[in-house]
Amino acid sequence: MTKTAIKTKAYAAVSAGAEVKPHEIERREPGPYDVLIDIKFCGVCHSDVHQVKDDWGGAIYPMVPGHEIAGVVERVGEKVTKFKVGDRVGVGCMVDSCKECGSCADGDENYCEKGNIQTYNAMSLDGKNINFGGYSERITVLERFVVKIPDNLSLEQAAPLLCAGITTYSPLVHWKAGPGKAVAVVGLGGLGHMGVKIAHALGADVTVISRTNNKKADAEKMGANDYVATAEPGAVEKNQNRFDLIINTVSSAADMNAYMGMLKRDGVMCLVGAPSEDLPIKAFSLIPKRTTLSGSTIGGMRETQEMLDFCGKHNIASDIEVIPIQKINEAYERLLKSDVRYRFVIDIASLK
Amino acid sequence: MTKTAIKTKAYAAVSAGAEVKPHEIERREPGPYDVLIDIKFCGVCHSDVHQVKDDWGGAIYPMVPGHEIAGVVERVGEKVTKFKVGDRVGVGCMVDSCKECGSCADGDENYCEKGNIQTYNAMSLDGKNINFGGYSERITVLERFVVKIPDNLSLEQAAPLLCAGITTYSPLVHWKAGPGKAVAVVGLGGLGHMGVKIAHALGADVTVISRTNNKKADAEKMGANDYVATAEPGAVEKNQNRFDLIINTVSSAADMNAYMGMLKRDGVMCLVGAPSEDLPIKAFSLIPKRTTLSGSTIGGMRETQEMLDFCGKHNIASDIEVIPIQKINEAYERLLKSDVRYRFVIDIASLK
Repeated sequence: MTKTAIKTKAYAAVSAGAEVKPHEIERREPGPYDVLIDIKFCGVCHSDVHQVKDDWGGAIYPMVPGHEIAGVVERVGEKVTKFKVGDRVGVGCMVDSCKECGSCADGDENYCEKGNIQTYNAMSLDGKNINFGGYSERITVLERFVVKIPDNLSLEQAAPLLCAGITTYSPLVHWKAGPGKAVAVVGLGGLGHMGVKIAHALGADVTVISRTNNKKADAEKMGANDYVATAEPGAVEKNQNRFDLIINTVSSAADMNAYMGMLKRDGVMCLVGAPSEDLPIKAFSLIPKRTTLSGSTIGGMRETQEMLDFCGKHNIASDIEVIPIQKINEAYERLLKSDVRYRFVIDIASLK
Repeated sequence: MTKTAIKTKAYAAVSAGAEVKPHEIERREPGPYDVLIDIKFCGVCHSDVHQVKDDWGGAIYPMVPGHEIAGVVERVGEKVTKFKVGDRVGVGCMVDSCKECGSCADGDENYCEKGNIQTYNAMSLDGKNINFGGYSERITVLERFVVKIPDNLSLEQAAPLLCAGITTYSPLVHWKAGPGKAVAVVGLGGLGHMGVKIAHALGADVTVISRTNNKKADAEKMGANDYVATAEPGAVEKNQNRFDLIINTVSSAADMNAYMGMLKRDGVMCLVGAPSEDLPIKAFSLIPKRTTLSGSTIGGMRETQEMLDFCGKHNIASDIEVIPIQKINEAYERLLKSDVRYRFVIDIASLK
């Protein structure tokens, strides 16, 4: 780094499966297009747990997790035009991309042909591991990858929108969820509960598909019109040919063909959770009704801002449990047992 | 049957895997909405071989295969309005549907919610095995399921359009193949060679994906702009992120993820061949580029007529090898070795 670095307190895992513990990192001084953000809250995504444990391979340590970042602008570079000191802002799953390919030109930096640069557990475009996430006091990010948080949303409840919100909003809009459309959301966790709220606000008829009836009352409060518990006898059979769109938030290859059977002709199932095992899809789950299996990952920066503005307008935010950072390892254990309704959010004040 | 039946010479398999041999069947006298067709030619589809051998289970014997039927109208019921005696007509893969569901109302009888009634190896709506196919002298079919063959196409070369033609035309049109679109066709057989001709006529930039370079010259003659032989080193790697649409005509689960990698962002691979084994799809073949895996089966009756009119206008027909029906078992063996360019068609005169 040519500029002075800013010493920053953080929590990191130093090796695969290690506990996340206090660690000091450096943030770059803001360059001309950079925004330095004083982090107030950071959501805890299921993928934080996977990456800390190196479940997907290729993990880089020390790793500071966290890509649901909400904070306040502390300083801006001289060429920054979109933000000023004191603005309430967010950073999600990516902090850079090639900015030159067709996807980037279209504003779909999430589908950058060279691969977008993730907020943590990734190398920067010039090959440095400066990509430390939101379990830290502050972060320096290019203004292109920073978004504004609407005034009527609290920072702590808005933080999970930066990943869970955009991950469900983008496919709902892309596949045209809205009035007259029957939309199902598989799994009512961090992603799923945002999917239900957003699909409801888009005007769709929303059904939650879950294993048991445990979360039925919550689903209704979030705007679900119906609830299917797949563990109930005959539940799958009774719901054949029903949905235009299924947003599948469950990272498991099981039951893929059963869900495909629940689609109408020309229906779409979109995966936003990524099972690591192969999906055993049957050709006869696709051909007889011209059904589609697709996937989606976060959203572009323009769409992320659009999602935040939509959530502001409809007063949509995440259901959260705020924790001090000292409880993060315990939170991971509870997350693995789905023991959270519906997102842990770290109060970064506890780190300072 | 309440009406007199019409004795009809045919070729049938009497049990799973038996040779196809001379057999007498009965056709119904035309009812008010029926058309009696004097069959002149019948194409030999790969699925004939699968069904004769009961590869997909549930086969009904005796089985008269054949669903690429071209002939001349011999008689019409009193309420038939679309056809008259002497018209050149075709019958494809289905001869009935519920005619009441949303799909049927939309003219997508192929996606009938109760399942369309296949031309052979299926029971009629009233539960009789009268669904004998085109390896026969004549057939009685509801006028809704009969289409007109354009004057400029020979009956023998038009016969394969009734299955191979519509099976590739429908997804090409549905997924918007046309000018500016890069379309690949995997497999240059009966389906694939029709796919190439139709995609070219639709104005798309067409690439054939095949294992070896053996069919390269043929592909170019059919209108392909490029050819990828996957057995050549590096062929898959060199063609990543290239296609908007891949029509996969190969009934094999192998290489599915390799083909998905050849799609651009938002690209679609549509299966028109049906592997019986599960497709080992990786979530990472779908999520990072929002790619789609879908399937398609034949087309509705309105679309089938549209396809024939399109083929007439562009002078597109199948490349065929005409055989007498006495050579059918030999043709099956050659078909299994892909030893035909590109469709066997039975001259039904040999049966009479």
